[in-house]
Amino acid sequence: MNSLKELLEKVKQIFENEPFIFEPRELYTPIDYTLSLGGKRIRPVLLMAGCEMFGGDINQVKDAALGIETFHNFTLLHDDLMDKSPIRRGQPTVYRKWNENTAILSGDTMFALAWRYFLRQSHPALQDILNTFNETAIGVCEGQQYDMNFETRNDVSIAEYMEMIRLKTAILLAGALKIGAQYANAPESDIQHLYDFGIHIGLAFQLQDDLLDAFGDVKVFGKQTGTDISDNKKTYLYLKALELADEQQRDTLQQLFATTPANPEEKIRTVLGIYQDLDVRNTVENIVNEEFAIALNELDAIHVDPKNKATLNELANTLLGRKV
Amino acid sequence: MNSLKELLEKVKQIFENEPFIFEPRELYTPIDYTLSLGGKRIRPVLLMAGCEMFGGDINQVKDAALGIETFHNFTLLHDDLMDKSPIRRGQPTVYRKWNENTAILSGDTMFALAWRYFLRQSHPALQDILNTFNETAIGVCEGQQYDMNFETRNDVSIAEYMEMIRLKTAILLAGALKIGAQYANAPESDIQHLYDFGIHIGLAFQLQDDLLDAFGDVKVFGKQTGTDISDNKKTYLYLKALELADEQQRDTLQQLFATTPANPEEKIRTVLGIYQDLDVRNTVENIVNEEFAIALNELDAIHVDPKNKATLNELANTLLGRKV
Repeated sequence: MNSLKELLEKVKQIFENEPFIFEPRELYTPIDYTLSLGGKRIRPVLLMAGCEMFGGDINQVKDAALGIETFHNFTLLHDDLMDKSPIRRGQPTVYRKWNENTAILSGDTMFALAWRYFLRQSHPALQDILNTFNETAIGVCEGQQYDMNFETRNDVSIAEYMEMIRLKTAILLAGALKIGAQYANAPESDIQHLYDFGIHIGLAFQLQDDLLDAFGDVKVFGKQTGTDISDNKKTYLYLKALELADEQQRDTLQQLFATTPANPEEKIRTVLGIYQDLDVRNTVENIVNEEFAIALNELDAIHVDPKNKATLNELANTLLGRKV
Repeated sequence: MNSLKELLEKVKQIFENEPFIFEPRELYTPIDYTLSLGGKRIRPVLLMAGCEMFGGDINQVKDAALGIETFHNFTLLHDDLMDKSPIRRGQPTVYRKWNENTAILSGDTMFALAWRYFLRQSHPALQDILNTFNETAIGVCEGQQYDMNFETRNDVSIAEYMEMIRLKTAILLAGALKIGAQYANAPESDIQHLYDFGIHIGLAFQLQDDLLDAFGDVKVFGKQTGTDISDNKKTYLYLKALELADEQQRDTLQQLFATTPANPEEKIRTVLGIYQDLDVRNTVENIVNEEFAIALNELDAIHVDPKNKATLNELANTLLGRKV
């Protein structure tokens, strides 16, 4: 069993040893740029940890690890274009550094490259493994569509929001774990527990991200706070606040979330004030804790030696910013 | 052995029986729109014909046929967005009828749907088959990038143009044939001949399309002529004309291909006049005939009963607008 740190080092090596530049260079330079920027590399680590947990060899899944991370970066590349996000990991996004067509076509090619990596290694259950990957990919696209739909809808329910983040964020974490377990020929029932562990960690992680965007310390969070509010993102916090608000607070929230002032500080302050009055932070922190607890229960339920679960336990705690 | 007409009917039925609308409808309605507009359905027919030729059963490849056509339509959808083409098959393109983000995300989803279809059926050589599909997909992306590069380059050679259309057009026809043959467990050497048949038919088809755009009868061609000239497309005709031109003709061509007049009729007339003076039409018609002859030689070289080649022979002639 490799520790979290060892798996991260392994993933780093895999990416350093893989060439990403081919001809035509106009197509592959943005791909190399995207895949070399780093990021937390959570998904390949999950995939490897899911494999090792059931006695699999991580050398067997290094191409799948490359594949899942390449797919993830493809979705970020296209999402940044669709959301018109200028910065990713502290650097200009591809559509800004190059142009929109480059972002479209390099993204498409990255999706195909992800498949190239997945197809490099054989496995008796390859068709099942590829199905897991592909159904995950379709779900991620559906999640992004729901997210875009929500921008123009004023009647989004909390249940719909949870379904959106399940698709957009959680299933890729869960899918990575499942693929790792499939490579290690894990039993179906254990795979299901591991998948559900991934789903609930993913939900907790996204809700925590919503919290940090509103209440986080810029120095710790590493990015600007209040951006969800200034971007009028209908996060769990906003939807929960609407649910708890009196008529006047609801009117204020809805009016503010229909404006995009050049200087959003006053708006952010007002919204955060309402969140505070309604104790939204505590409410959402409780949901994060609940999801985290469900996740750990699922991990507990898997029939392997508890020491095989150590890396995933560590990863779950690290993801949620908890000391282990 | 099914005739061309029978295979086309079969493909039509497959598309009619497959549901394309799921939730969220905003994502799947443009996909249904794209896949229901029809088109010539050449690639799924090639895939089925490639399979039947070696004694395979077309029911074994109906999902692969769906997959290859879905992939092709995905590339058209994204190409139309990148090229800002307003019309496809007489109807508004997806980015025009909806918007750019819809075109990006519905396209991405179509690529994943193509994989869903390919993954629905098992085969002992599935990994090889999927590799053929995926390497073809990567090549098509590379071809599109070269095509975009050529827009801003003034030193494109004829060899580079041929490589671009090989990637952008020919390899998908060849790949469809190869996949069909792989399902039927055809021998490697025959698969290579079949693939090369597809490559040369594809090259002939694209060069013929260049010719028709310049010299075709609008009523027969079914679309406006002269668009490559008004769009400053560096087709084989243009590159060959540059090669044959004297200094004055070259200057005129290069100057005209650096302008986009609101009313391009005068420009089209001048360019066609130069093509005529240089006998470019005849020169390119000869290349089409050569590529067609090479293709038929490759078909001849395949070790199956000649009557198993009848459908592909018919399809090749039909594609090139020749009476059989």
